Amino acid sequence: MYDIVTLGEAMLRFTPPDYQRLEQATSFEVNVSGSELNTSWGTARLGLHTTWVSRLVDNPMGRMIASKAREMGVDASHVQWTPKGRVGLYYCEMGASTRASRVYYDRKGSATSQMKPGTVDWAAILDGARVFHVSGITPALSADCRVVTEEAIRAAKLAGCLVSFDMNYRSRLWSPTEARDCIEALLPRVDILLTTSDDTSIVFGVEGEPADIAGKFVDEYGLKVAVLTIREAPSVLRGKWSSVAVTDDGQIYASHAKIDLELIDRVGSGDAYDAGFLYGFLTGDVPKAVRYGDAMSAIKHSVPGDHSWITLEEVEAHVEGLRTKIVR
Amino acid sequence: MYDIVTLGEAMLRFTPPDYQRLEQATSFEVNVSGSELNTSWGTARLGLHTTWVSRLVDNPMGRMIASKAREMGVDASHVQWTPKGRVGLYYCEMGASTRASRVYYDRKGSATSQMKPGTVDWAAILDGARVFHVSGITPALSADCRVVTEEAIRAAKLAGCLVSFDMNYRSRLWSPTEARDCIEALLPRVDILLTTSDDTSIVFGVEGEPADIAGKFVDEYGLKVAVLTIREAPSVLRGKWSSVAVTDDGQIYASHAKIDLELIDRVGSGDAYDAGFLYGFLTGDVPKAVRYGDAMSAIKHSVPGDHSWITLEEVEAHVEGLRTKIVR
Amino acid sequence: MYDIVTLGEAMLRFTPPDYQRLEQATSFEVNVSGSELNTSWGTARLGLHTTWVSRLVDNPMGRMIASKAREMGVDASHVQWTPKGRVGLYYCEMGASTRASRVYYDRKGSATSQMKPGTVDWAAILDGARVFHVSGITPALSADCRVVTEEAIRAAKLAGCLVSFDMNYRSRLWSPTEARDCIEALLPRVDILLTTSDDTSIVFGVEGEPADIAGKFVDEYGLKVAVLTIREAPSVLRGKWSSVAVTDDGQIYASHAKIDLELIDRVGSGDAYDAGFLYGFLTGDVPKAVRYGDAMSAIKHSVPGDHSWITLEEVEAHVEGLRTKIVR
Amino acid sequence: MYDIVTLGEAMLRFTPPDYQRLEQATSFEVNVSGSELNTSWGTARLGLHTTWVSRLVDNPMGRMIASKAREMGVDASHVQWTPKGRVGLYYCEMGASTRASRVYYDRKGSATSQMKPGTVDWAAILDGARVFHVSGITPALSADCRVVTEEAIRAAKLAGCLVSFDMNYRSRLWSPTEARDCIEALLPRVDILLTTSDDTSIVFGVEGEPADIAGKFVDEYGLKVAVLTIREAPSVLRGKWSSVAVTDDGQIYASHAKIDLELIDRVGSGDAYDAGFLYGFLTGDVPKAVRYGDAMSAIKHSVPGDHSWITLEEVEAHVEGLRTKIVR
Amino acid sequence: MYDIVTLGEAMLRFTPPDYQRLEQATSFEVNVSGSELNTSWGTARLGLHTTWVSRLVDNPMGRMIASKAREMGVDASHVQWTPKGRVGLYYCEMGASTRASRVYYDRKGSATSQMKPGTVDWAAILDGARVFHVSGITPALSADCRVVTEEAIRAAKLAGCLVSFDMNYRSRLWSPTEARDCIEALLPRVDILLTTSDDTSIVFGVEGEPADIAGKFVDEYGLKVAVLTIREAPSVLRGKWSSVAVTDDGQIYASHAKIDLELIDRVGSGDAYDAGFLYGFLTGDVPKAVRYGDAMSAIKHSVPGDHSWITLEEVEAHVEGLRTKIVR
Amino acid sequence: MYDIVTLGEAMLRFTPPDYQRLEQATSFEVNVSGSELNTSWGTARLGLHTTWVSRLVDNPMGRMIASKAREMGVDASHVQWTPKGRVGLYYCEMGASTRASRVYYDRKGSATSQMKPGTVDWAAILDGARVFHVSGITPALSADCRVVTEEAIRAAKLAGCLVSFDMNYRSRLWSPTEARDCIEALLPRVDILLTTSDDTSIVFGVEGEPADIAGKFVDEYGLKVAVLTIREAPSVLRGKWSSVAVTDDGQIYASHAKIDLELIDRVGSGDAYDAGFLYGFLTGDVPKAVRYGDAMSAIKHSVPGDHSWITLEEVEAHVEGLRTKIVR
Repeated sequence: MYDIVTLGEAMLRFTPPDYQRLEQATSFEVNVSGSELNTSWGTARLGLHTTWVSRLVDNPMGRMIASKAREMGVDASHVQWTPKGRVGLYYCEMGASTRASRVYYDRKGSATSQMKPGTVDWAAILDGARVFHVSGITPALSADCRVVTEEAIRAAKLAGCLVSFDMNYRSRLWSPTEARDCIEALLPRVDILLTTSDDTSIVFGVEGEPADIAGKFVDEYGLKVAVLTIREAPSVLRGKWSSVAVTDDGQIYASHAKIDLELIDRVGSGDAYDAGFLYGFLTGDVPKAVRYGDAMSAIKHSVPGDHSWITLEEVEAHVEGLRTKIVR
Repeated sequence: MYDIVTLGEAMLRFTPPDYQRLEQATSFEVNVSGSELNTSWGTARLGLHTTWVSRLVDNPMGRMIASKAREMGVDASHVQWTPKGRVGLYYCEMGASTRASRVYYDRKGSATSQMKPGTVDWAAILDGARVFHVSGITPALSADCRVVTEEAIRAAKLAGCLVSFDMNYRSRLWSPTEARDCIEALLPRVDILLTTSDDTSIVFGVEGEPADIAGKFVDEYGLKVAVLTIREAPSVLRGKWSSVAVTDDGQIYASHAKIDLELIDRVGSGDAYDAGFLYGFLTGDVPKAVRYGDAMSAIKHSVPGDHSWITLEEVEAHVEGLRTKIVR
Repeated sequence: MYDIVTLGEAMLRFTPPDYQRLEQATSFEVNVSGSELNTSWGTARLGLHTTWVSRLVDNPMGRMIASKAREMGVDASHVQWTPKGRVGLYYCEMGASTRASRVYYDRKGSATSQMKPGTVDWAAILDGARVFHVSGITPALSADCRVVTEEAIRAAKLAGCLVSFDMNYRSRLWSPTEARDCIEALLPRVDILLTTSDDTSIVFGVEGEPADIAGKFVDEYGLKVAVLTIREAPSVLRGKWSSVAVTDDGQIYASHAKIDLELIDRVGSGDAYDAGFLYGFLTGDVPKAVRYGDAMSAIKHSVPGDHSWITLEEVEAHVEGLRTKIVR
Repeated sequence: MYDIVTLGEAMLRFTPPDYQRLEQATSFEVNVSGSELNTSWGTARLGLHTTWVSRLVDNPMGRMIASKAREMGVDASHVQWTPKGRVGLYYCEMGASTRASRVYYDRKGSATSQMKPGTVDWAAILDGARVFHVSGITPALSADCRVVTEEAIRAAKLAGCLVSFDMNYRSRLWSPTEARDCIEALLPRVDILLTTSDDTSIVFGVEGEPADIAGKFVDEYGLKVAVLTIREAPSVLRGKWSSVAVTDDGQIYASHAKIDLELIDRVGSGDAYDAGFLYGFLTGDVPKAVRYGDAMSAIKHSVPGDHSWITLEEVEAHVEGLRTKIVR
Repeated sequence: MYDIVTLGEAMLRFTPPDYQRLEQATSFEVNVSGSELNTSWGTARLGLHTTWVSRLVDNPMGRMIASKAREMGVDASHVQWTPKGRVGLYYCEMGASTRASRVYYDRKGSATSQMKPGTVDWAAILDGARVFHVSGITPALSADCRVVTEEAIRAAKLAGCLVSFDMNYRSRLWSPTEARDCIEALLPRVDILLTTSDDTSIVFGVEGEPADIAGKFVDEYGLKVAVLTIREAPSVLRGKWSSVAVTDDGQIYASHAKIDLELIDRVGSGDAYDAGFLYGFLTGDVPKAVRYGDAMSAIKHSVPGDHSWITLEEVEAHVEGLRTKIVR
Repeated sequence: MYDIVTLGEAMLRFTPPDYQRLEQATSFEVNVSGSELNTSWGTARLGLHTTWVSRLVDNPMGRMIASKAREMGVDASHVQWTPKGRVGLYYCEMGASTRASRVYYDRKGSATSQMKPGTVDWAAILDGARVFHVSGITPALSADCRVVTEEAIRAAKLAGCLVSFDMNYRSRLWSPTEARDCIEALLPRVDILLTTSDDTSIVFGVEGEPADIAGKFVDEYGLKVAVLTIREAPSVLRGKWSSVAVTDDGQIYASHAKIDLELIDRVGSGDAYDAGFLYGFLTGDVPKAVRYGDAMSAIKHSVPGDHSWITLEEVEAHVEGLRTKIVR
């Protein structure tokens, strides 16, 4: 029995070292990256039992992804394997002011995007699970993936499991209208919505203060809680992070303060937030969820690659107060 | 006016360092790689004027390929650019006995494979050219690419230009039967055929001594010259190289001796042979072509990546005699 | 229920890159290394269900070891965690003729060496298991570790589980006499002995042809099978590998031929043999075990680090015939 | 026919990685670097047709320089080749507060510094060209180079081509007095002067507000336009960039605002400004030139090495507004 | 005759590159690190004659430490060599906000910690020396090391040599009470005390303004001078540095201003301060000592590794004024 | 008092990694390299007291050279320092069959080549020394260096010190005739000549069996001993090493057997031989010298860079018998 079940694609991520531009690189750092896998990693590191459902090619690149899932403590036994096809990938260029970081996807036709409806035994996997988590990327991968996502969410509700959804809009995968059509159909079964004001603005045309936006979604779709994460970027290499959650009883829980960040690698920090939030939520309450989400995301910004190489002890120390001096 | 015009795809090549397996790598070396581009590089290094015709995405990965073409002195002004699509790629694992080196392609749907017939002004490009060179990979990329290849070859004959063809059978792209059907249709317009006994066996079912095989093809298809390159692999990291050419007057020109090789990177060595052969042929005769092809290929085995970072002076010194001691 | 249960220490291994000497290095490659963990890795890669029992410090270095165990598919849920202590390590210098490779251990006082008798629930772990495997390194770590090893072996016999033992004599840990005293006490409960003529000579003073040595041990200690692996080193970077197994019915099963090797990293190749042998034994018979052991070991020599990044498909292809040319 | 013709030296640049000091380095990153070549690169990337005139040794180091020129799209067909001599080089140490970055030149006696007057067919090269660009480094290399520079400028005026001059004072090459004598003789033929208040102060003893200094030079020497780039360095790794241009009709065009920079590599940013300015000037007017110069320079600060790996699309986006968040 | 004699342990330091966490690293940068050796290095670079007394294993790791001592100009002829034992080490993780840098020691049982009283001929080594310097780490290593430290200090007083002591409290080595007991016994023989308000607070329970704290120690223990270095950490990667010295005549000498730092590697910066202070003190007076200490420490923060790769000329330039622009 | 005094130039050596060609490199490994310094290093490692006399620029590159001298235990206190000038360097390309390794020098005008006669107090340095060693490179650097070499040799004879001379002919520095003129003048004062049949053939036109050549030189110039080292290169990466010494009493001492080598880096192996030979000679006799020279050279071939990171214990083990298996 899993605490958390996730569904999604993971890709290889290729990053030139030392702030090189992609065009000039002679080597790429290789990471495994994928929104829901990132969230599974984070929760596994914090001590929850989690499985990640996906579809991979049985070649070295597919096996690398499954190995990395296991390395972080994520169960990969429900991954579907296919002898043919390709592993999706993306190129990630790290910037510095005044050049923003940039991502180029090459994920079309990946094995995950070709998952077929009806091929996952969701009832078995979700039996006894506490949370099913997926992001808006998965239904955007293909028409079939949208159906698989819907199957999973329906099964989760049947299993009495909470549904957590991170909107994660990706403009290269679908249009705002397509995204809205799909997500509107999913939200009535969602309990926990995690998103940003950028995404709610683009996809739903909703603008305003974060707490107001979150409140609107709670009301409109009958959510248990909606969370907006707020990222400010005073420069490419510096950031400020905070978040606000609104619950179905109208309570607003916000970060105590914006956290100042020195960005080593911001990719996956939203997914790390989700992991921290879900951990805090399952082991405490929404205020704890906000604090643990903030801590996970803040620390993640300092870690190269998508993995949340973070311990529960570190998150708890972070919640208690920031340290900037060396710890011996 | 070009000495040599080539047509083909180039990909990014990802290679783990230090004989790592793909699954364990945390970084990949990045090279640009493509059979016909390799041959263009080699001939450009030797002093010929060469252009490479292809189709690339206008993103950093596509631009990297064009930049590398130019870096080696290849004209890239006839490359077609497309705003969308993907750059093909492959993963290349370097082995050591008893683990053979291995290549995994991920090239499906590349921009080059989507070249459209009728979009290249072959008459203009080939006007005054001396050789048009293409390998069996290009027509295997897609039905359209097969037509583009045929267009190019026909235009070459019209332009009074020699046609050079390297069979380069790729089992991941097509079946032996498909390959044979296509290549048989091309060969009557080919002047120079470059291949191996492995490929002639698989595709044409022709077996025998290299010189006999070459002779058969010369006779059967009215070639000016057919060349078989002969690679022995006593171990993964050691090799022996030689070649034999048979001309339409039945003359056989073989390497004086097998060349002992210490393999640093054997990818692209066949293409380097083609470059050396064509250079020798255009500036001399078939015997010179064989010697220059052998030298280019032998040296290429010692150079990391696909590029033939070799000078004419080095090829000429190699033809005169091998050196193994340090040169100060 | 596990197919294979192992017990032992894993360490960090520090290796200077590019054949540098330790003294001149400015960086070390970091690997996780440990004889029994290596064997667990190998069997997990081949598809068996395996757990590795050990004791680690709950710091980043200890967690790295557990993560790597999981990455390769090894269950690490029976690892004991301690807040204090140290992770053992060793320095590994890669040589070339005429400088042999060399290992310097710094493992004294490691958390694993401080495992306490009676702290592992062997009955539960071994319930239903098919093989318990340990090497001579584990009992050599400390007096307590010797007792833990004995406990495990006794429990294995009680559980009806085969006991596999690799002699693996380490002169830095104990003297030949100490080793002999301990191992002689263990062997009567051992079913499968894996060793080398070097080790049997040093520890037991037994000399002779490999098959004779193996036969003597089978007879003397009532083993089911004894295996000698035979390593020749014509130079530091080249090797020849073979093995011979003798069964309790006096049958001798030897490698068909010595396998020529180009050594990238020979550390862990004996452990990889054990993995292949156990897999072949459990899924077939002794002849299969010898062939799969040889294949695993031979391929491992070409892989940097201790991990057997090898697939069952590759082992089977290797058993059918060696390839030295590139596979596309 | 070229849009832009430049004349100058390019060197190898050796940089220790990761902010190491030169003394402690065990490896150097290798780049090709040279003020006028940098400017040619930048303009080629933006779509102009440009050639770089220089003199190189026909050895691997000289060929590397020519290859890199071509890679970025710069014509290198007018480079003079010499079998003997040396390629100039410099060592570049990257600092962080409170240690400034530092450059050590070793360029004396380079092939370029030994260019001979009368050996370049300037009339042919400049025929139809729109701009000839050179910096104060070139005439400082040697007495002969000063004559070659004068020949080029005179030929440019005859060809009806604009002359662009970046003062680029280098204290290791000549004294302020020597520089002033030479530059004063050149300026009457210059149309576009690019410089800094540091250089005008040291060489000409002119102090004051940037716009005033620029105005003085326009008036004194009859320039079409004089540009001062303004670099502030609040710390070693952070900077602010702006510029101001004054035209012969007394108009002042300044940056809208100082651009905040996170410095990855500031070497070559002045040359990138020149490229952006010249592009903007040739395709628009002085205000466009200032904005494009600012954008090119600002982005260049974030790119390792001297090459301006920047696209026109990026410059145009930068002109429209800065982005600090990741672009997917 | 030495200007400065130091006593202490040096370790290998393992640091993952590029802000990686220890758990995710596949390689470590290797440095030699040790408080008193760092101080010896710094003074040797500034031109003083210095020897470092220690005990090392005669293996590659021990020899590496001695080689690095010599490389920086430190005499290593009084190092004791032992054939057995281990070299201490630590793992150092570089952070970025909001993750602090962190150190994990693995130094227990090192050869240095096993130095024996009575084995160093202090009278000979200290004969004519001007300063004996040791930190609070050395007596904390073991009971024997505490005795050796006492022997050295006593011998220093006999030799008429100044005693310099950096409190350097290490919580992993001893408790505050143990530290206080030991240090209180040493201080009456100390002339120069270097410490921080953190350490005086933890070990002695003394709080207050730095100058007040320093004054208290001068008064209490009859010191010639007490120095407090003051480190502020507005973020993990940025810092501010200053210091204040109080002399036995009650004079207070403080930094002119806090120095803003961009931290590349802050490990060893306190030791570099000590080196600069001692140099300034021996070649001038306390005000010079403060300024040279500040400069050494500030520059050290920008240098990777523990070595003070700094020249006297650079320190003097730093004292005269900071530079942030590139120096050509 | 030194055991061995050497005189010569040291340079920076730049080597592309991983068998890359110089033209394709994006980084160079940096080593310090110089024939006589190499020999000093080797003898220092073996326990002799040695100083290296040279002239260096007081910049980071010059200081790096002196630091590396000290690191290996060589006294650098007699190095002359100059504020201006350049450090010589060379580019070194590592090959594999059929591409030989290659060296490109850029040493002209180095600080060492500008040493002035009469500036070294040879009488003081050589007082009590046992051997003065220099190679044919030093007098070839400049006319002044030739005089300095002569001064040193004359002073050595006056001091009663043996003179050791390695012919080391460098065709880029002088012609065979120039070399012969100079060396013939030096040889009458030489006691120990070390050379190769290549050099004796080119410079002196002497051909024949190594022992015959050595004998001729002993007779002709009244040497105590002449040594010919014999290098065979069956391929670029494999070698065979042996040597033969002939003494003034006509005895011939040859290697017992040719040593098979796997070449990691052969640069400096001749200098390592000299070090081993001199050590064996000073601590034993000519047969010991030959064996220790062979061992030092053979091991050096396996070590990257020019430094002889070798211990006396290793040399002695090598003399007793080769090992190819891993040592634990």
